[in-house]
Amino acid sequence: MKALVGAVLIGQSGGPTSVINASALGCIETALASTNVTKVYGAAHGIKGVLNDNIYDLTLEDREELSLMRYTPSSVLGSCRYKLADFLADDTDYKRILDVFAKYNIRYFFYNGGNDSMDTCSKISSYLAQHDYECRVMGIPKTIDNDLAYTDHCPGYGSAAKYVATTLMEVGRDAKVYDTGSITVVEIMGRNAGWLTAASALSRVRDKDLGPDLIYLPEVPFDMADFMSDITRVYNEQGDVLVAVSEGVKDKNGSFISSYFSDSTKEKDAFGHSKMGGLAANLAEFANSKLKAKVRGIELSLLQRCASHLASETDIEEAYLAGKAAFEAAESGVTDKMVTFVRDPGSAYRCRTGLVDLIEVANAEKKVPREWINEAGNGILQPFIDYALPLIQGEPDRPLENGLPRFTHLKRIQATV
Amino acid sequence: MKALVGAVLIGQSGGPTSVINASALGCIETALASTNVTKVYGAAHGIKGVLNDNIYDLTLEDREELSLMRYTPSSVLGSCRYKLADFLADDTDYKRILDVFAKYNIRYFFYNGGNDSMDTCSKISSYLAQHDYECRVMGIPKTIDNDLAYTDHCPGYGSAAKYVATTLMEVGRDAKVYDTGSITVVEIMGRNAGWLTAASALSRVRDKDLGPDLIYLPEVPFDMADFMSDITRVYNEQGDVLVAVSEGVKDKNGSFISSYFSDSTKEKDAFGHSKMGGLAANLAEFANSKLKAKVRGIELSLLQRCASHLASETDIEEAYLAGKAAFEAAESGVTDKMVTFVRDPGSAYRCRTGLVDLIEVANAEKKVPREWINEAGNGILQPFIDYALPLIQGEPDRPLENGLPRFTHLKRIQATV
Repeated sequence: MKALVGAVLIGQSGGPTSVINASALGCIETALASTNVTKVYGAAHGIKGVLNDNIYDLTLEDREELSLMRYTPSSVLGSCRYKLADFLADDTDYKRILDVFAKYNIRYFFYNGGNDSMDTCSKISSYLAQHDYECRVMGIPKTIDNDLAYTDHCPGYGSAAKYVATTLMEVGRDAKVYDTGSITVVEIMGRNAGWLTAASALSRVRDKDLGPDLIYLPEVPFDMADFMSDITRVYNEQGDVLVAVSEGVKDKNGSFISSYFSDSTKEKDAFGHSKMGGLAANLAEFANSKLKAKVRGIELSLLQRCASHLASETDIEEAYLAGKAAFEAAESGVTDKMVTFVRDPGSAYRCRTGLVDLIEVANAEKKVPREWINEAGNGILQPFIDYALPLIQGEPDRPLENGLPRFTHLKRIQATV
Repeated sequence: MKALVGAVLIGQSGGPTSVINASALGCIETALASTNVTKVYGAAHGIKGVLNDNIYDLTLEDREELSLMRYTPSSVLGSCRYKLADFLADDTDYKRILDVFAKYNIRYFFYNGGNDSMDTCSKISSYLAQHDYECRVMGIPKTIDNDLAYTDHCPGYGSAAKYVATTLMEVGRDAKVYDTGSITVVEIMGRNAGWLTAASALSRVRDKDLGPDLIYLPEVPFDMADFMSDITRVYNEQGDVLVAVSEGVKDKNGSFISSYFSDSTKEKDAFGHSKMGGLAANLAEFANSKLKAKVRGIELSLLQRCASHLASETDIEEAYLAGKAAFEAAESGVTDKMVTFVRDPGSAYRCRTGLVDLIEVANAEKKVPREWINEAGNGILQPFIDYALPLIQGEPDRPLENGLPRFTHLKRIQATV
């Protein structure tokens, strides 16, 4: 394989994580060290930065400051949720992308995201190839949802899982501190896959008194009557209930349970505006209709995906490795692939990187296996614990200033050619 | 002063904190080491444990396990919100308390809580004195609200403040990751005093791009029109807004703003149950009525008061010290006092313990000085930063197991005499 000399471009897309910047850093630092690389660019807000010719010259950043990306949550380059059309139907965006790539002589393109980002990558790669523009295109996985197929797990998941497990241990202690009866429902991200909600079960590894008594994932149809019966049983047994529920739980017809509580005839407040309420609060209130207890709904909201103060060092290291592996593969001639994680067999956790075709990942979604969930659909079994526990290990030596995180502060200098 | 020999009883009351157990531990360990102490007991669920004769014999606990209380959030003995009647009106509870104290020969009583707990302490002490039962009664302060008077600050506040500041830095990065406009409102605990909400300003100490753009405390009347005008200005300037608001903001008539959104004619869902919605979500939605942006309301909820994984080491040490000082003072003959913190003058932070009459604390509430809030009432000034920043310093060396916190697990053996 002939060496390909040119510029590198990296973009970040979709919902951020605690370690998406660690992946970008792995790619950027490896690229900066390569003799085949003329420049390293970052796209502002993912592919939108390419379309808008809003490109940062990362070569001009201070290396020390850049290295803090390892511990900085959310996408430092900015993110987007932009879906490219099929280029056979409308190639406007693609022409623009090709122009901008040519302008900066971009020969290596890395996109850091989930399924949709892999779809974007795959389409761009096909278009460039059809127009004889040589560019190696690689996907770097990222998602707290852990729903990408063909990889053992995804960078971002371990840290979010550690946050969920730790927080549920703490909330469990707090919610049950009074002897007056309480029902606490915690809502966790995940529209279709329950990986992150399942991580709440890690809080019970040492002590069954901690963490949620009941756990509901989108993988099992949710039934309001069964839910009421579950919490009534636990409440009658122990006088309090802690529930972890995925935002994406659906009934047997596939309708989101959250939609039960948000019909179009929403009440208006004093200002004529619709009121809002989350699934957690509504389920807690529903429970309260029968069990007159102190109820509380808690949404972990953005905190679960950006809490880098509780990142897993394993996750950070692997995220960095994924970015590094992406560049190394591309430099060696690989294109149209996403980096994957391959777990070695055996009881001791060991993980290597692998590669999979972008197009395969773009069209698949990985869910929690039914056999890792108990028969009643309200609890998590040991195989999941064995799978997830290694991913949350290790405490990063994160830099602090004044007792607070020291995040990177990039100069983000506009690229010129 | 003649040495008083007998048993020690400690109880915990009110909303838990990350370090309330560190205070209890300071008192318990110091008491266990004293030759004047025959037994160390813990009351289950505060004063309710006394009334129900539900008393743990802490002398039987494993010392190593006990020492983990330092890093265990929420009240390990259980808490309560029980208000004693005035004993001149109804002395039923007091007679019972005297009986139980006499049964266990309790000569030192420590109550770990906020204003109400100091009121409880004070009443019990008066009653016991009037019935010639010698017992030294001491209050150990605790509250994330930081609203106790006569003390520079309260144990529990520094850790909650550190959580709020760190989380707002992270959420700020996440909420502003897209270029499509966003309004994020974060609701922070504090019904009457804005200390904890003000702590969100610590997130901006190094970098004004992080943390909230606007901060609203209960100390300044909240006006919906001013709020709309504030966020519109910031949104037009920078395309996104992050707001920190205290749950207790009130209008100029003293009505809670949250009450605007929860009238008695609440909409019912499909099951006939009232819907719930928090202040944050409702304010975000209100903002959205004029500024069509992506809006999000986030309630920090229980997380802010139990997140011991982000406790301040300064707070932990001081909390322990407060418990220790309470026992030492009582042993030396002091009664009817609460331990306070006294900050030494000068720029370097140094803090000693002091004492104040229980009755004084019970009837006072400390608010954020108006001059520490900007004139517009939507931001925090430097004097607050100077005050609060030292309180969040230091990272505890908290024990972990499997990458998760290792909390204490007490045997809680029922006391016998």
